Amino acid sequence: MSKFGFSLVATDRQSMARAGVWSTPHGVVETPAFMPVGTAGTVKGLTPDQIVATGAKKILANTYHLALRPGAEVVADLGGLHRFFDWSGPILTDSGGFQIFSLAKLSKMTEEGVTFRSHLDGSPLNLTPERAMRIQELLGADVIMCLDECPPADAPHEKILIAVDRTTRWAARCREAHQNPEQALFGIVQGGTIESLRIRSAEALLPLDFPGYAVGGLSVGEPPPEMYRTLEFTTPVLPVEKPRYLMGVGRPVDLIEGVLRGIDLFDCVMPTRNGRNGMAFTSQGAVRLKNAKHLKDTGPLDPNCPCQACRRFSRGYLRHLFMAGEMLGPILLTLHNITFYQTLMQNLREAILAGRGQDFRVDQLARWGESG
Amino acid sequence: MSKFGFSLVATDRQSMARAGVWSTPHGVVETPAFMPVGTAGTVKGLTPDQIVATGAKKILANTYHLALRPGAEVVADLGGLHRFFDWSGPILTDSGGFQIFSLAKLSKMTEEGVTFRSHLDGSPLNLTPERAMRIQELLGADVIMCLDECPPADAPHEKILIAVDRTTRWAARCREAHQNPEQALFGIVQGGTIESLRIRSAEALLPLDFPGYAVGGLSVGEPPPEMYRTLEFTTPVLPVEKPRYLMGVGRPVDLIEGVLRGIDLFDCVMPTRNGRNGMAFTSQGAVRLKNAKHLKDTGPLDPNCPCQACRRFSRGYLRHLFMAGEMLGPILLTLHNITFYQTLMQNLREAILAGRGQDFRVDQLARWGESG
Repeated sequence: MSKFGFSLVATDRQSMARAGVWSTPHGVVETPAFMPVGTAGTVKGLTPDQIVATGAKKILANTYHLALRPGAEVVADLGGLHRFFDWSGPILTDSGGFQIFSLAKLSKMTEEGVTFRSHLDGSPLNLTPERAMRIQELLGADVIMCLDECPPADAPHEKILIAVDRTTRWAARCREAHQNPEQALFGIVQGGTIESLRIRSAEALLPLDFPGYAVGGLSVGEPPPEMYRTLEFTTPVLPVEKPRYLMGVGRPVDLIEGVLRGIDLFDCVMPTRNGRNGMAFTSQGAVRLKNAKHLKDTGPLDPNCPCQACRRFSRGYLRHLFMAGEMLGPILLTLHNITFYQTLMQNLREAILAGRGQDFRVDQLARWGESG
Repeated sequence: MSKFGFSLVATDRQSMARAGVWSTPHGVVETPAFMPVGTAGTVKGLTPDQIVATGAKKILANTYHLALRPGAEVVADLGGLHRFFDWSGPILTDSGGFQIFSLAKLSKMTEEGVTFRSHLDGSPLNLTPERAMRIQELLGADVIMCLDECPPADAPHEKILIAVDRTTRWAARCREAHQNPEQALFGIVQGGTIESLRIRSAEALLPLDFPGYAVGGLSVGEPPPEMYRTLEFTTPVLPVEKPRYLMGVGRPVDLIEGVLRGIDLFDCVMPTRNGRNGMAFTSQGAVRLKNAKHLKDTGPLDPNCPCQACRRFSRGYLRHLFMAGEMLGPILLTLHNITFYQTLMQNLREAILAGRGQDFRVDQLARWGESG
């Protein structure tokens, strides 16, 4: 019997939002859920206990970064990802495809796979669907992703069509190569913001019967309303009984809009990256801590937040840490921002259970103002 | 009645080492003790809870750095140092003098005080004994230090003599200017490595009846045996019933040698700075984590250490963090190194209580080898 299971607990009366429970070999995740990004096997600056304190249950790690350094075989020799960074909860790895298209120097793409150069040392490497499965098996995450082709937001229709069909063929090869029953393999829907192509992609993947489906190729430069519109015609094609994952998204408002359009899972570097740069998401909107007005502010960053940064320190101290270039600034704001995202998802789930998803959205957007 | 008190619990049968209990308005510290350095109001990379977990009871913060940024008045407005970085235990601040001599561009020294330029922006500043007291009063540490003149290790006899006598006159002015009974003011003995000058300095300070005495001007470039020799003729001149603090020292071996010569308190950036650079102090000697031999090492950094870095992660993972430039590497090694120093001081204290200080020294040095 599968160690994976997804069950819907409730559907919102006011939207397409769903509340679910998702079981994995490393524990249960209530959805909708946001996964902090632990790029190279560490959520930058946080110990596992600090991640747990944010409320996060599940982490994403990047196959591309780990495969380059220290190498998938090294991670396997060190006991796999869970042992590697001592995370006992579920982990998801991406396929590495997105970073090859965005970060590495792409050399060649063929039906077989992609050839590229490492952004670290320029060394030539290649990735095929089969190799993507093998690497992710070595890393040992609970959920692994198919290798997909992710064209830029402004790619022409013809190029996106080619990417959709190649993604489908690669998905079939991934399905064939995937062996470990302790790992769930998700398919990825492509198709840009074009309705016919999204439907073509999703319908082609359905016969492969993946235990979960991701929406890829969004948040790659298109305006947010285009992303929301795309979700509106994409999620209805996906199976109701399986988890849906919107890759690489997004701002707090994007999470709400995504959930209201039927998305269950998210990941994004925004809370961690912005936190390292001194930008905090708060219940009153975004706060830039380096701003001089916080110099002598004895108040908390966010009076409504239960995190350590808000309970124990003043805005004035947090600002000092950033002005002095002290590591503890990025650490505390990373803690805070992830906590903010987790709290948002918990509140959103409660709103869904109460059948008030749209009301929740309206209320939150009013609180955050333009900066949300 | 004073909120400060120092009582000797035991004196080593094999050396001049002492075990004591030192009371402050913010709690009790068992001596000998090592204070981690929180330069700018943060032990780099650690939250207060993580500092507590190392066993550290008392922290040093640098007046020079805090006075420059965010400014002593700002720290006072934010509630003083204890509130500023949420440390409920004792805090000690130095006078700022050492950094002016070592870090800032010294412009002029007169009997009145020192004029210098900030290493941050070159702005002209000055510090007098009275201003050093005022700044430290604003910062609000439990223990504050007199402004002293700290000449380099290779300064000629005449120059050191001048520094000794100026340090004495400044100490008298500090004593006069010091007002807050919640803060204990320590005197600082100077005199380089010259016996007659150390004795001259100590004897001149004794009539001022400070509640504690520091030995300054060591670990400034002289060979370690010179430092040990200097302690041998300095500590006997200091009052037995008051705590003795060796400023800015040092390596684990220096702590042992210092304790055996009658020192009670230490501070040093070595465990934190070396930790950030990937160098760990362990029960088997120094370990450089970037070394390739740790690539696939599944074993702990130090099997005898109770810290999080050693209990939860492999050497291979810790090495990966440093090779990938991940913040968690410096954080975990800072945690570990401070824990190592605290454990060393606890074990040293137990050895003193057992009357076996020299035996402990011989045993530790044999374990550490040349790298200790």
